[in-house]
Amino acid sequence: MKLCEMDRLQLETFYISAQKEYEDCKAKGLKLDMSRGKPGREQLDLSMGLLNMRISPDDTKVDGVEARNYGELMGLPAARRLFAELLGVKYEQVFAGGNASLTLMYDLIAKAYTHGLLHSEKPWSKLDNVKFLCPAPGYDRHFTISTSFGMELITVPMTENGPDMNLVEQYVKDPAVKGIWCVPKYSNPDGITYSDETIARLASLKPAAPDFVLMWDNAYCVHEFDGEFVPFKNILDECEKSGNPDMVFEFASTSKITFPGAGIACFACSEANMAYMKKLLNAQIISFDKINHLRHVLYFKNAQGVLNHMKLHAKIMKPKFDMVLNYLESGIAPYGIASWHTPKGGYFVSLFVENGCAKRVHQLCKDAGVVMTDAGATYPYKHDPDDSNLRIAPSFPPLDELEAAMQVLCVCIKLAAAEKLLAN
Amino acid sequence: MKLCEMDRLQLETFYISAQKEYEDCKAKGLKLDMSRGKPGREQLDLSMGLLNMRISPDDTKVDGVEARNYGELMGLPAARRLFAELLGVKYEQVFAGGNASLTLMYDLIAKAYTHGLLHSEKPWSKLDNVKFLCPAPGYDRHFTISTSFGMELITVPMTENGPDMNLVEQYVKDPAVKGIWCVPKYSNPDGITYSDETIARLASLKPAAPDFVLMWDNAYCVHEFDGEFVPFKNILDECEKSGNPDMVFEFASTSKITFPGAGIACFACSEANMAYMKKLLNAQIISFDKINHLRHVLYFKNAQGVLNHMKLHAKIMKPKFDMVLNYLESGIAPYGIASWHTPKGGYFVSLFVENGCAKRVHQLCKDAGVVMTDAGATYPYKHDPDDSNLRIAPSFPPLDELEAAMQVLCVCIKLAAAEKLLAN
Repeated sequence: MKLCEMDRLQLETFYISAQKEYEDCKAKGLKLDMSRGKPGREQLDLSMGLLNMRISPDDTKVDGVEARNYGELMGLPAARRLFAELLGVKYEQVFAGGNASLTLMYDLIAKAYTHGLLHSEKPWSKLDNVKFLCPAPGYDRHFTISTSFGMELITVPMTENGPDMNLVEQYVKDPAVKGIWCVPKYSNPDGITYSDETIARLASLKPAAPDFVLMWDNAYCVHEFDGEFVPFKNILDECEKSGNPDMVFEFASTSKITFPGAGIACFACSEANMAYMKKLLNAQIISFDKINHLRHVLYFKNAQGVLNHMKLHAKIMKPKFDMVLNYLESGIAPYGIASWHTPKGGYFVSLFVENGCAKRVHQLCKDAGVVMTDAGATYPYKHDPDDSNLRIAPSFPPLDELEAAMQVLCVCIKLAAAEKLLAN
Repeated sequence: MKLCEMDRLQLETFYISAQKEYEDCKAKGLKLDMSRGKPGREQLDLSMGLLNMRISPDDTKVDGVEARNYGELMGLPAARRLFAELLGVKYEQVFAGGNASLTLMYDLIAKAYTHGLLHSEKPWSKLDNVKFLCPAPGYDRHFTISTSFGMELITVPMTENGPDMNLVEQYVKDPAVKGIWCVPKYSNPDGITYSDETIARLASLKPAAPDFVLMWDNAYCVHEFDGEFVPFKNILDECEKSGNPDMVFEFASTSKITFPGAGIACFACSEANMAYMKKLLNAQIISFDKINHLRHVLYFKNAQGVLNHMKLHAKIMKPKFDMVLNYLESGIAPYGIASWHTPKGGYFVSLFVENGCAKRVHQLCKDAGVVMTDAGATYPYKHDPDDSNLRIAPSFPPLDELEAAMQVLCVCIKLAAAEKLLAN
């Protein structure tokens, strides 16, 4: 029976029962973490081969480039080819970087401030106001980059097909709006993949700012855990076809393929953007770590090698997501007190509890020893206007701990919902 | 006989003989590179053990930190300890970074522009003019960072004891002067180690700018190739003792210890600076590559392990420097047409040919198939006011190629000097 259909007595009975269940949970003295999208230990063990390769001096020279020495700003050519194949872009469009796509994104924004982008009239540091579109719920670290530079963050609601494009198209008429953060495939946290129409509308935006930038964080480009690899539109091509070749930078990394924070990252962009970026990057770096590039290339050989490897991740991830979804389906759905997405890839389940209850659920979980991502973290300025969204990150805890955490979470959702209704 | 003591006939004979020698060199069709401070192949082979370690999952957790997963902004604690021991600074003062100290330096300057440093009144991007002191000859990539940000570069002549401190002390009275580039041990290219007095005067500067920064690039901190390791003043302590604890950032890396561009880099600074930097870095990176940190720690274990390893480099480097210096001593010294430093560490021999002759020597070498670092590159704006300095980088070519290159260089020095005298 749905909670909203209960009479006062039924509700009170439900509340007392939930409270008892909660006290039992607390008594267990749990200490569980569902807060960050960190791969679990089993997943880390999948890539131990990368740590234990045999590499001879002859292996280190590929395409005439010595991976062990200085040089080759754009990175090891073989690593650029691997990313080009994975993203379906051209070799010339790929820059192979360091251990973190987040840093490449930060650095691009930093360069927009210090030097300007290719089509900037002046560096953003010389502007009075810079605004950035933030589809939300979204990735907190994107928003942190924007706030670090003092931008004004504009929340754009997410729909089932990606950001609300009617709003985006309105907002970009403001020349102070300089870009948008996108996680287009298995979005963080909703697990939504942008529809073809959304992608087409993004690629053909007509922003007032000549240096408007699509920050296309394709973090989960090959991260299906349920079903086969799903091919995805090449945003560079889409932008070029729409007459916006220089409007997009795409980012990806192997952080959730091999080792988080010790993989290799890349960005891809038009050749005109690349020529511009090379001039700037030439002052910052001789090249990123080409030996790590080499290791990844020798280990995977090609995109198919990566996809095969992702199947091993999927085998570990699928049961964890199933457990989360089963608990929500059986423990919460009957009461009609929350909704959630059912992703087929990525790292999160996005949960919407009753309006005004997310912080309360978070606190109840915390008091019972279960750490979740902060309520509100998925919104600009950490402010969820509905206080409704919670991000479940099932990857890190082992299955038994995840189960214990989900039991707690379900109890807390019920308790918070009952509290709210009873207070009315 | 010195060239300046020759009469016209002697000079003409000398010139004709040099010209003949030069034509013989050209006829050999050489293709040699003495342009960059890149370790040679033999040196790269020294660290193959780092590429071929056996690392078990149990090895990857050190001090409770899992090197294979996200987290620990400051880097693997064991890597920070290693750098702390190498530089003689405190663990808390060390940030372990990515593959390049150059990038850490660039990023610090970038943050000064976008956010300001700890004691900045405002970000440097908001200032009309930023000036930076550039001891010269110096490292071209330092100057490139400064020019990339549009700074005004002020040349400070190098003395045998480091930068001319009388000038430095004058210049820092200008509040627009925001910092100085220093390579304090085996400076690039002169191989000069700053004297204790110079270091004391630098540490006790009283700059008008509250956010003046010593960019202390200790690139060659353990890079003796002639004799034992020479302990070196801890600049962080010196600055603290002089009441300037936050005035310095020190940089180092293992690029010329293990693999160029694939080693690990660090910066060290006061704890107040570190607290400030952590806030900014938190938006840029989750952490740099802790697996590469781990590899280096497992490989070297401690500072003594690094010093032992540097002895192997020294065995390869010493004969190359001896060859360069022997050629100059026997082939050039008798004519009194050039001077040079005799370093005991670092990567370069700094050569001063007759005023107005460096570009000519460079061109003659190039025409004979020997690439040297561009004449002027060691000065701000690539402008050597005397057109005299050339940087010899002996590390990269094998010994036989180095010998061939030095033969060419000596001929070119003679030819250019004779041309100059005959034109008078």
